[in-house]
Amino acid sequence: MIIVMRPDATPDQVEHVKMLVREQGLKDHPIVGTDLTVVAVIGDDRRKDKGVFEQAPGVDRVVPILAPYKMAARETRPTKTQVRIGSNCVFGGVQIPVVAGPCSVESEAKLLEVSRMIKAAGASAIRGGAFKPRTNPYSFQGLGEEGLKYLAEAREETGLPIITEVLNIADVELVAKYADCLQIGTRNSQNFKLLEACGRQPKPVLLKRGMAMTIDEFLQAAEYILAEGNPNVILCERGIRTFEDHTRNTLSLSAIPELHHRTHLPVVSDPSHGTGHARLVADMSRASIAAGADGLLLEVHQDPQHAMTDGAQSITPAALAELMPSLARVAEAVDRRCDALVGAGV
Amino acid sequence: MIIVMRPDATPDQVEHVKMLVREQGLKDHPIVGTDLTVVAVIGDDRRKDKGVFEQAPGVDRVVPILAPYKMAARETRPTKTQVRIGSNCVFGGVQIPVVAGPCSVESEAKLLEVSRMIKAAGASAIRGGAFKPRTNPYSFQGLGEEGLKYLAEAREETGLPIITEVLNIADVELVAKYADCLQIGTRNSQNFKLLEACGRQPKPVLLKRGMAMTIDEFLQAAEYILAEGNPNVILCERGIRTFEDHTRNTLSLSAIPELHHRTHLPVVSDPSHGTGHARLVADMSRASIAAGADGLLLEVHQDPQHAMTDGAQSITPAALAELMPSLARVAEAVDRRCDALVGAGV
Amino acid sequence: MIIVMRPDATPDQVEHVKMLVREQGLKDHPIVGTDLTVVAVIGDDRRKDKGVFEQAPGVDRVVPILAPYKMAARETRPTKTQVRIGSNCVFGGVQIPVVAGPCSVESEAKLLEVSRMIKAAGASAIRGGAFKPRTNPYSFQGLGEEGLKYLAEAREETGLPIITEVLNIADVELVAKYADCLQIGTRNSQNFKLLEACGRQPKPVLLKRGMAMTIDEFLQAAEYILAEGNPNVILCERGIRTFEDHTRNTLSLSAIPELHHRTHLPVVSDPSHGTGHARLVADMSRASIAAGADGLLLEVHQDPQHAMTDGAQSITPAALAELMPSLARVAEAVDRRCDALVGAGV
Amino acid sequence: MIIVMRPDATPDQVEHVKMLVREQGLKDHPIVGTDLTVVAVIGDDRRKDKGVFEQAPGVDRVVPILAPYKMAARETRPTKTQVRIGSNCVFGGVQIPVVAGPCSVESEAKLLEVSRMIKAAGASAIRGGAFKPRTNPYSFQGLGEEGLKYLAEAREETGLPIITEVLNIADVELVAKYADCLQIGTRNSQNFKLLEACGRQPKPVLLKRGMAMTIDEFLQAAEYILAEGNPNVILCERGIRTFEDHTRNTLSLSAIPELHHRTHLPVVSDPSHGTGHARLVADMSRASIAAGADGLLLEVHQDPQHAMTDGAQSITPAALAELMPSLARVAEAVDRRCDALVGAGV
Repeated sequence: MIIVMRPDATPDQVEHVKMLVREQGLKDHPIVGTDLTVVAVIGDDRRKDKGVFEQAPGVDRVVPILAPYKMAARETRPTKTQVRIGSNCVFGGVQIPVVAGPCSVESEAKLLEVSRMIKAAGASAIRGGAFKPRTNPYSFQGLGEEGLKYLAEAREETGLPIITEVLNIADVELVAKYADCLQIGTRNSQNFKLLEACGRQPKPVLLKRGMAMTIDEFLQAAEYILAEGNPNVILCERGIRTFEDHTRNTLSLSAIPELHHRTHLPVVSDPSHGTGHARLVADMSRASIAAGADGLLLEVHQDPQHAMTDGAQSITPAALAELMPSLARVAEAVDRRCDALVGAGV
Repeated sequence: MIIVMRPDATPDQVEHVKMLVREQGLKDHPIVGTDLTVVAVIGDDRRKDKGVFEQAPGVDRVVPILAPYKMAARETRPTKTQVRIGSNCVFGGVQIPVVAGPCSVESEAKLLEVSRMIKAAGASAIRGGAFKPRTNPYSFQGLGEEGLKYLAEAREETGLPIITEVLNIADVELVAKYADCLQIGTRNSQNFKLLEACGRQPKPVLLKRGMAMTIDEFLQAAEYILAEGNPNVILCERGIRTFEDHTRNTLSLSAIPELHHRTHLPVVSDPSHGTGHARLVADMSRASIAAGADGLLLEVHQDPQHAMTDGAQSITPAALAELMPSLARVAEAVDRRCDALVGAGV
Repeated sequence: MIIVMRPDATPDQVEHVKMLVREQGLKDHPIVGTDLTVVAVIGDDRRKDKGVFEQAPGVDRVVPILAPYKMAARETRPTKTQVRIGSNCVFGGVQIPVVAGPCSVESEAKLLEVSRMIKAAGASAIRGGAFKPRTNPYSFQGLGEEGLKYLAEAREETGLPIITEVLNIADVELVAKYADCLQIGTRNSQNFKLLEACGRQPKPVLLKRGMAMTIDEFLQAAEYILAEGNPNVILCERGIRTFEDHTRNTLSLSAIPELHHRTHLPVVSDPSHGTGHARLVADMSRASIAAGADGLLLEVHQDPQHAMTDGAQSITPAALAELMPSLARVAEAVDRRCDALVGAGV
Repeated sequence: MIIVMRPDATPDQVEHVKMLVREQGLKDHPIVGTDLTVVAVIGDDRRKDKGVFEQAPGVDRVVPILAPYKMAARETRPTKTQVRIGSNCVFGGVQIPVVAGPCSVESEAKLLEVSRMIKAAGASAIRGGAFKPRTNPYSFQGLGEEGLKYLAEAREETGLPIITEVLNIADVELVAKYADCLQIGTRNSQNFKLLEACGRQPKPVLLKRGMAMTIDEFLQAAEYILAEGNPNVILCERGIRTFEDHTRNTLSLSAIPELHHRTHLPVVSDPSHGTGHARLVADMSRASIAAGADGLLLEVHQDPQHAMTDGAQSITPAALAELMPSLARVAEAVDRRCDALVGAGV
């Protein structure tokens, strides 16, 4: 880190700062400029609270230099991590898997029906919520374990792996028993105890970006999982909260190349939550792939006008079937592939 | 809600929307305007997914009209709720309690020392984290139950009630055993299962606003606690995430009068997290009281240059002692009081 | 608009609101719901200040229903507007023009050199600033009319049309004399007098989105130009200001399909300003085309390490030459074209 | 500035960066850390484009250290600047002037009437718009010079100085002829040519913060005016654009103490635009004073239900008269004064 002194800081104040740095077991390196002095701190200060130096008299501010994550950093692992869910669905390779499914698992029959349609359309995995975090306490909260069982049946029938959200540490084991990949939602993206619990179980984890998270914070959240021993983390851009009101969130696609620049982990995009409106999903799916996404998460419902949750942003299986060839064309234009996996799960 | 049709919607599309409304057990009321038609929906649609109507052909958008919370609403309870923690500390009355303490409980000796200083300065309650949610996995994570015991000792010694954060459903019972008030932090403000668990235990709950939460979402989060039977919820404005970079967050003080306008629950302010810099805490504490805050949360550390967490935003006990009379003056200017409780804890 | 009354509003208060509506020459239509009453307002209320109703006793809030723009609205003109600059460069058709050039015109020699390189790489138009709005008063402010002359020379030599920014009403005539298209920058996007002045001259106008502008406000700004009689407006998404700090702005690509949904005007993307970092430009250019952009604005400098302005986000002519075939591939994948215009300007 | 190299940067890349620094006439000072190397730049780099270094191979990012403004900085002028408008109204002293008036000048009679009421309530200056920047081209745009004349009459009659907005360079001379203080609105806060023009005329300037402006950008905008020779600049916090939807903007009161920390210029607050709702104005006015504001701007209209602009946020003269004693009490609690000026304008 760099400690920036005020223009009017006294030599004693600089000395005091240097002493504070040494107290922390780090090396100080002061630089006297024309307008002011800065004290560069040498050593691994990732574990130090940068804030404490701000309180020292004469300090203007503290600028972190080292990235606050290590295992997630590209420098640690120069080749891209490939995360496999189920037997055939790999994130981070040439192929771009499309994960599709209803926001919530609503019933056995409806899930099996939509899963068959999704497979026919060419998706590589099924998503569906058994436990739902709802902003409103009076909204439908999901079917719980029953929903997980239906998801397992859908996998049985289609051969596609399943991704589903875990809300709660107590449910991690249960969800991990059924799911091929655990999802941590945007509202839990800094629920650090849950991140750790997911880091201690064997299934891959799809981590959604928090709606007010910077890239650094996102990678620190991933680091919680990695640090517990689970290397299989998929990052998901799903929109951030901004002043824009024409969408539910602002899908920040530049996060995709920026994450590729900083981390070896695969990055997927969720244009359904990222926009909140079905009418924007096709264009933003194509844009996500063009921006370098390693996968897509799409909400698909056979009857969005009667969906129990997130109807506004769900597309129909027919719309998905129409979208897939177009995604394949864009993928090809960026030297990737996005087509139905031959013999998936057979 | 109001369903706004596109200017070019056909009569059949309007009919279809009316049918969808009726299917949900609600009453439709179409209004034909000069440029377009809207369908007003009559009945309690709080439990309905507004999104589904957006998918109907010819619909432009859906505008919610009813507030999505009920028990938290001012209409439900015209008088202001007063929440008492411990025996003498009441939020929502004329008196404005100041809750002060270190970000983390670091050791028994340090906590007892700072607690005595805080009491001497005139604070009404002690705050301190035993379980810490840290953005960075390599940072200090708190002392756990040991920290809770030290907090109980501090209460014993000073007579001041204690507020501490609960991160995890599994810890709710434990924290409730020691604390006079449970705090739910900003990163857990939409951890709905945790909100429910806190709603099912008897201690008051201080709920921090999420850093990307609207007022409606904040009151819906409170509703999760209220709906489980716990009426003692204190709301806390603690800064939202914006483009501003001179502060860690943007303390949005207009949330205080707006919340008073919409809810009967008491509202406190946290200028420490809300700004992230000790140099801004005094001014923003005074501003919070002038804006109508029912209490303040202040991070106080006897040696911020050596604090284990949040050093940058902690003020010293001496600064607190200097601040208190000035808070009392501002409180008096708005017909409130903010002074040391006579005989507190005796 | 819809005027939402408070749940406790009295019948007299509703009557008063109805009277206020009629006073404005509009028709009132009250709807009594189960929880509260709303008053729908019938008639063209675009010219009315919605705010005034909020002051009436018993009113909770006012919800606008009609879009606040008319000439820019898709309903007014169902086919997409095509805007031609120079003789061969058309925005809004199948072809996606790439506009490239330096942030500032720095000298005659450098501009001519880079223009030749840009043409060779396959761009369809040249951009370059003669008048520069600089956040910092001590930064380079542009060459003024001299810069315009160099741009005209570059057009002469390459046959490519030129786009350049106008900062000031007094310069509109001068800039219009030299340029094929006037650009209004993000900082002037609500400089309404300048918008009007550009609406009263004959050259097309490229209007950048303000960094804190909603879609509605953007289209209202365009309406200022259209309303003065100039139908040739190109909209440009160039990034909005959010909490993100890994980019200079957040390029909000969902604005592109949303604008296509609401307006007939062509929409282009500026990934250079939208990200602020050259390393993100190629991916975000491809993503912009995949999202439906009708053109691209790219900052290109032959020696970004010595550029006088915006060095961080400029790509080299070699990078542009490498990017162009890849843009053509993505364009083709979405049934568009993005290749060098055959015989452009010859 | 500090140039941060990537962890994998080669020694040659570091050498190249050092050379680039020296080329700019600055001194390089490399520091080799445990994880990476940084190159500190010594000398006044305020006029340099930090961006260019980002393009050099091996560079991760560039961190500015010097504040990008000089004349506005506290270090340049340790005592607070006092700006006087008219004869008795001073911003930056113990007294806190309240500037009140209608959003727009609507007619001679209405302006004179409200001005008398405002004076009677205890305001120190009159505000009112003759030229109005309206988001919507179909809204009322102001009376122009006629409005200025009415403002001059209002000054004549009440003895209170007048503040009014200038939108356009061509109008600067005209507005300066009538007004005691020129206002630059939020939409023009980075209209640098207009800032310069206001810097070259003799009347004080009230500069509103842009709705997406950082503190650094705000002070750079002020620097434009100062650099032209006009030292009398008043800064105005008026709300920033965030995701919050319960207010028109988010009034960021921490900007007030932060600006006092960084600049010697007086800082006022505009709770009317900062909230957009009359119901929040009183609380936020009190909070502004408690936060250290040097003045208030309040929209006052004798009949907000019939105001031509900004009705929702205007308070009545009666509400102002009721508010003033309460502001005086809060001012006193922070050792300031906010009362009617004795003998104002006599």
